[in-house]
Amino acid sequence: MSKKGNEHAVTPQSEDFSAWYNELVVRAELADRGPAKGTMVIRPYGYAIWELLQKELDTRIKATGHQNAYFPLFIPESYLTREADHVEGFAPELAVVTHAGGKKLEEALVVRPTSETIIGEMFSKWISSYRDLPLLINQWANVVRWELRPRLFLRTTEFLWHEVHTAHADEADAMRETMVGLATYVDVATNIAAMPVVSGEKTAGERFAGADKTFSIEGMMRDGRALQAGTSHYLGTSFAKAFDIQYADETGGRTLCHTASWGMSTRMIGGIIMTHGDDKGLVLPPRLAPYQVVIVPLGKAELLETTTAAAQQVAAELRAVGVRVHVDLRVNLSPGFKYNDWEMKGVPVRLEIGGRDLEAGVATMALRISEDGKLAVPLAELVAKIPVVLEDFQEFLLARATAFREEHTTPVDDWEAFVEAVTTGWALVLHCGRPECEDDIKEVTKATPRNVPLGGKAETGTCVRCGQPSAYGQRIIFGRAY
Amino acid sequence: MSKKGNEHAVTPQSEDFSAWYNELVVRAELADRGPAKGTMVIRPYGYAIWELLQKELDTRIKATGHQNAYFPLFIPESYLTREADHVEGFAPELAVVTHAGGKKLEEALVVRPTSETIIGEMFSKWISSYRDLPLLINQWANVVRWELRPRLFLRTTEFLWHEVHTAHADEADAMRETMVGLATYVDVATNIAAMPVVSGEKTAGERFAGADKTFSIEGMMRDGRALQAGTSHYLGTSFAKAFDIQYADETGGRTLCHTASWGMSTRMIGGIIMTHGDDKGLVLPPRLAPYQVVIVPLGKAELLETTTAAAQQVAAELRAVGVRVHVDLRVNLSPGFKYNDWEMKGVPVRLEIGGRDLEAGVATMALRISEDGKLAVPLAELVAKIPVVLEDFQEFLLARATAFREEHTTPVDDWEAFVEAVTTGWALVLHCGRPECEDDIKEVTKATPRNVPLGGKAETGTCVRCGQPSAYGQRIIFGRAY
Repeated sequence: MSKKGNEHAVTPQSEDFSAWYNELVVRAELADRGPAKGTMVIRPYGYAIWELLQKELDTRIKATGHQNAYFPLFIPESYLTREADHVEGFAPELAVVTHAGGKKLEEALVVRPTSETIIGEMFSKWISSYRDLPLLINQWANVVRWELRPRLFLRTTEFLWHEVHTAHADEADAMRETMVGLATYVDVATNIAAMPVVSGEKTAGERFAGADKTFSIEGMMRDGRALQAGTSHYLGTSFAKAFDIQYADETGGRTLCHTASWGMSTRMIGGIIMTHGDDKGLVLPPRLAPYQVVIVPLGKAELLETTTAAAQQVAAELRAVGVRVHVDLRVNLSPGFKYNDWEMKGVPVRLEIGGRDLEAGVATMALRISEDGKLAVPLAELVAKIPVVLEDFQEFLLARATAFREEHTTPVDDWEAFVEAVTTGWALVLHCGRPECEDDIKEVTKATPRNVPLGGKAETGTCVRCGQPSAYGQRIIFGRAY
Repeated sequence: MSKKGNEHAVTPQSEDFSAWYNELVVRAELADRGPAKGTMVIRPYGYAIWELLQKELDTRIKATGHQNAYFPLFIPESYLTREADHVEGFAPELAVVTHAGGKKLEEALVVRPTSETIIGEMFSKWISSYRDLPLLINQWANVVRWELRPRLFLRTTEFLWHEVHTAHADEADAMRETMVGLATYVDVATNIAAMPVVSGEKTAGERFAGADKTFSIEGMMRDGRALQAGTSHYLGTSFAKAFDIQYADETGGRTLCHTASWGMSTRMIGGIIMTHGDDKGLVLPPRLAPYQVVIVPLGKAELLETTTAAAQQVAAELRAVGVRVHVDLRVNLSPGFKYNDWEMKGVPVRLEIGGRDLEAGVATMALRISEDGKLAVPLAELVAKIPVVLEDFQEFLLARATAFREEHTTPVDDWEAFVEAVTTGWALVLHCGRPECEDDIKEVTKATPRNVPLGGKAETGTCVRCGQPSAYGQRIIFGRAY
């Protein structure tokens, strides 16, 4: 698409983080707003990130014994009402099909906001004996939740996700599955997205509608706010009761299944943008970068032909060792424009190849973030060096984000310190666990309980807000959230 | 899932082809009916076939320069009406969201039946100059078309597909793209699905709503009926006009783009079932078989442990050379039951490993279709032999289906022969090209013009039905169709 010189400038993060995000998503060509309210067009560059993330998730989902399947988009309205908490939670967000094929429907159809109900209905047909358990199913799909304050990737009326749904013989096996989901998300967030996360259990007020227990991973964005980037739910027997999911045990007795579900969505892309991005634009972790390396051949006329040929050869060599490379062959654009463009798009490594580089037998390498400036790298060493540079950059991003989160996470014991802490990050506090107290804290500070971190140190005392005895037996995280 | 002995029996094809199909889809666990009318649940075994087909298509779509993206499910109702033919064609099939977020919407939203309109709207924003062309986009998505007579895979209210949408500077480039789409489908149908197809142009009455030209691939099912398995459209400037898709040419003048689109869906799975299946069940082409080889270890107690260990080792060796293998470890099921089960599921190759096999150092190999019966294959030769057997079986299926189609395709010149020909297959005829005459033929025989085959021999004369001068300059195919 055509560009003008100042199109790379976005509002600095420090000035207005929200404006920075909104501008960047569109200018880096990740996504556009769709015509219907709250909908999103995911452009090729954004979709390529999603495909890389999908592949990482899909591999792990299959490796842990889940099989992909596909369930209908349209759910009879009556299904939602079978699980009381579920319908209460989702009713305000539903999109409803009332007419189809030129007629009014006898029963309205809900566009799936999540698929526990319709998958529960099918599970009840498929499961008859203990031999059918556990039943481990995953679906890649679009879902719709009507959003009043939509933001690209973070809260859109329609989003893409995967949703795992499973049925088990007992609570222990369903809880084991719930933790498999959570561990998968910790792995993908940390090792693929370079996004350090805290995994833990949600408080009662923040549970998924219909769940007995909800676990989440929470990442800290560069404005100090939290992003819930994936959730895993132990659903007890609620959906099994609502949809009659029963099995015959070894003695022939009929027993309700325990079910679980977990999901991660295109929201994760918003998390990657806000975990790593800076005033120049995106910064993509190499494992999710559509282009890990961009090569810009320099010069004019005959020289450009020579540098382009050299760039193509380097590209071919790097591709042969599995590096995702793009050679920027656009004409009528200055090198400076191209550098800004790829920096805005977050490409980890840029190689410039000019006449002097070729004379010296090198390429000039610039990392997206570096304190060392540009480096001359002998052409013959690129194939060995670039994969290492990419690995190092991946690790650097994770370490930087982890340090940022630690700097902005404060254990606090009094209310004034709490109010201060949640303006720039997270507060680690003792809390009474009462929903009314959570509501009060949210009212005053906009901060909400993010989760009760797994493996937190045992500690008791009094609630940071109300002074009543603390719950959970440990500190929990409060922060403002997306 | 638990099984009983006679669950493998399906109505024979010769007795009732339609019943055979409907029973087989459910019993082979490819798909189930969803709760809302005409919707489909694609079960893991069916979805695995779809994933293999997706991968083949996606690779080819990307290799020809297209980029994946994602556009919204919901399209403002007014968009559809901007292209008169398009809305006329799709209006009767639309599902409409009238309420969302607890309120009636100001403008109703259509659930996409196809995405020309919403993608056209975005193309008009993204395209400004000739440098932006061609713009080559692909989407993997679900679409909804309300069906009055739904059948699993063949006609479902919601189906999964890919849809390529492209914009070009002129007709020649858009037509070139249209033929890239068609060639991709011929390649995938023939070389991956082992489904011989005739590619050609649709007659005016059978065009996609809004297209200038529509091309299709048509396969012949084993009941002699045609299945349109993929279509590619040259859309002229209709959608460019409706959505203002213009570009500045090199002199700065504003010019309308020419657009094209092509799509292939989960319907293709129905085509595979009906091209290769027989009275025992599915027959899957190896390139789309989730399990290319199933190994059944035989014996009881200690012997079973030994044969299972041997089966696992063979499986590991075959996986190492890229063969998709499953070892059937189910207990309490007889060997005969397992053989019938995998035959019904269309697995190309079954290996049985029993005590005598191990003593002789062999596995007993049975092909899903073979005149040679079972063969003893030395264990040490399996890794070399199985890939060849699979390739041969793939070729055999294509040759068999091609021969079947040729036997059931008849050039006819008089009406009585036409009526006879379309009861068991296709008629190759001269036709006047008048829509009224097409309608008349359909009324009397249920046969419709499938397409005007590319590369057909030049021939003129009079219409097989009405005696008026023939159109197209060649014979065209008529047949009953799904």
